[in-house]
Amino acid sequence: MKRIEVNTKTNNYNIIISNNFDSLQEHLSKVGMDNKKVCIITDDNVSKLYLDNLCNIISKITDELSYLVIPHGEANKNLDTINTIYKKMIEEKLDRESYLIALGGGVTGDMVGYASATYMRGNKFIQIPTTLLSQVDSSIGGKTGVDFDGYKNIIGAFHQPELVYINTSTLMTLPKKEISAGMGEVIKHGLIASKEYFNYIRANSSKIMNLDNEIMEQLIYESCVIKSKVVSMDEKEKGVRATLNFGHTIGHAVERLFDFNLLHGECVGLGMVSAAYLSYLLKQIDSSELDDIKACIQSFDLPIKIDKLNELDIYNELYHDKKTKNNELNFILLNGVGSCEIRDDLDKEDIMKAIKYIL
Amino acid sequence: MKRIEVNTKTNNYNIIISNNFDSLQEHLSKVGMDNKKVCIITDDNVSKLYLDNLCNIISKITDELSYLVIPHGEANKNLDTINTIYKKMIEEKLDRESYLIALGGGVTGDMVGYASATYMRGNKFIQIPTTLLSQVDSSIGGKTGVDFDGYKNIIGAFHQPELVYINTSTLMTLPKKEISAGMGEVIKHGLIASKEYFNYIRANSSKIMNLDNEIMEQLIYESCVIKSKVVSMDEKEKGVRATLNFGHTIGHAVERLFDFNLLHGECVGLGMVSAAYLSYLLKQIDSSELDDIKACIQSFDLPIKIDKLNELDIYNELYHDKKTKNNELNFILLNGVGSCEIRDDLDKEDIMKAIKYIL
Repeated sequence: MKRIEVNTKTNNYNIIISNNFDSLQEHLSKVGMDNKKVCIITDDNVSKLYLDNLCNIISKITDELSYLVIPHGEANKNLDTINTIYKKMIEEKLDRESYLIALGGGVTGDMVGYASATYMRGNKFIQIPTTLLSQVDSSIGGKTGVDFDGYKNIIGAFHQPELVYINTSTLMTLPKKEISAGMGEVIKHGLIASKEYFNYIRANSSKIMNLDNEIMEQLIYESCVIKSKVVSMDEKEKGVRATLNFGHTIGHAVERLFDFNLLHGECVGLGMVSAAYLSYLLKQIDSSELDDIKACIQSFDLPIKIDKLNELDIYNELYHDKKTKNNELNFILLNGVGSCEIRDDLDKEDIMKAIKYIL
Repeated sequence: MKRIEVNTKTNNYNIIISNNFDSLQEHLSKVGMDNKKVCIITDDNVSKLYLDNLCNIISKITDELSYLVIPHGEANKNLDTINTIYKKMIEEKLDRESYLIALGGGVTGDMVGYASATYMRGNKFIQIPTTLLSQVDSSIGGKTGVDFDGYKNIIGAFHQPELVYINTSTLMTLPKKEISAGMGEVIKHGLIASKEYFNYIRANSSKIMNLDNEIMEQLIYESCVIKSKVVSMDEKEKGVRATLNFGHTIGHAVERLFDFNLLHGECVGLGMVSAAYLSYLLKQIDSSELDDIKACIQSFDLPIKIDKLNELDIYNELYHDKKTKNNELNFILLNGVGSCEIRDDLDKEDIMKAIKYIL
């Protein structure tokens, strides 16, 4: 078991990384859940796997336990599902001292976090992420949100959880494609923050894809450390947190143009190739580093090229990203592997070249 | 012109109190609005009175000005209207650095604040309140929200504005009934925080109802000072801010049972009579103080009794208030006039007596 402390201006909390649920009850008690109203929210896939188990654990510390099963998938990450959650919260008479538990992947976590942020101007919530993507990325840092009108996460709030409990054994039930997709964010952590970690990922790609227990625990730990350091410094993304968007500027545009039919991690992989090429064009990484990055992304079965899109559509779509400030595009570029910088001064010509590179 | 500084953990901003819009442009520039994207949101009543004027002022500092007129009234304070605002924000490509301006009463201010809090996880907004209630209460302190499923403000967020600009002359176009309703909160400020201010209000009731310029500026200033002091100490209502709910526990229950067909200030007036009587029952104020409070409320044409309701309905409705914690009712009681305390240990019997007192 490993523990990471996340300290933000608005809340301090622990990330627990374990390969079982044995210490979950103890950690829920520690944050104060005993005898409180608790509602578990999970989707119709994950509920079959872990809901009974979780209900058993939590019913040991409170009698006021309820749950809600929502439909799975990004297509349901919208305000209609949020309204369903609100109605359940009202029905169960939850208040500001009550807890929501998000059991599932990033879609569930983002939505439950948003419902918790906006119900009675904020109540408490716990993240129990069950996908690699949510374990290394979306469950940490308090970014919550839903899609609206075709725009990903354009409605949302910053709202920190009380606890993130990661049971790595839940990855065993995950389709391989979802492991690949999660690796998009893991590789990103190496690229922006630690060359050593990036090399560790490259060296262990087959063990990772086979979900080697020890390697996975270390991997998730390292990624959580990097992510939580960044969000502790800059909870509300006014500065350094933007570096976590490496690969996301073009990634989000591709994701939208494909109408969310590609996995987020696949789009981030493509976005990283594009951003790495842009870094290469500006002589911030050399060609062998660019090759290493592409090889690493490919070794996790993530695409490095995509067809069916044209470059101008992607370029125009960039301006619909919610990270545009006053129509200026912010790009995160590598400055060598393991380091990065935020740039808002790039030429359209170079950006177009970087887009073409993945087509 | 008067100025009050509000300092919270998440934002510092000014409240400007003036009897015209002459210095609005200067203050908008000061907060950084020059050349930014700005969208004014106002309702179909207020737009006829002040929208042109406001557009003229703001177009001097930015070319990227748009506006949206929403339907007026509490019945439209819901997530459908919020979605209309979101769509406008997307259409105008607003981003985190853009500004919404709430021009109107509390309903407009609460909704625009909520849209601003949740669009892209928070952008900037300005309050230009045009009713007495919003000038002395809802525009200050960053409580934003909408009604849902019959529950007032049950969905919301804490989100501080960048500026509150109060033009007291807008009160001239307000129906007398709305002045009365605003006086509910003004009297509350005196009762919970300053006996001197309460006596000032009593002594000037007819001048207030006639909107005497000088008295109104002083009144709004004093109320804003009291409110901003409390919210500066406790932005997220974990302690002392709850004292601002004096009169609101029973007030909200009445408001819901009347399906929002009574004005908020009228309900607060009734709630204050009830809470004052409870304070009297518990010997925290004497009978002459109770009489003074009732007389003061009546002098502003606010009801102190209501028919068509029964006490048990009101009592049960108390538990649907979002301020209930673990099924415990929190009441704010006076401790003499000008002072108050938060209590969660009241007998049902006493509460029932206090409810009966206003029936």
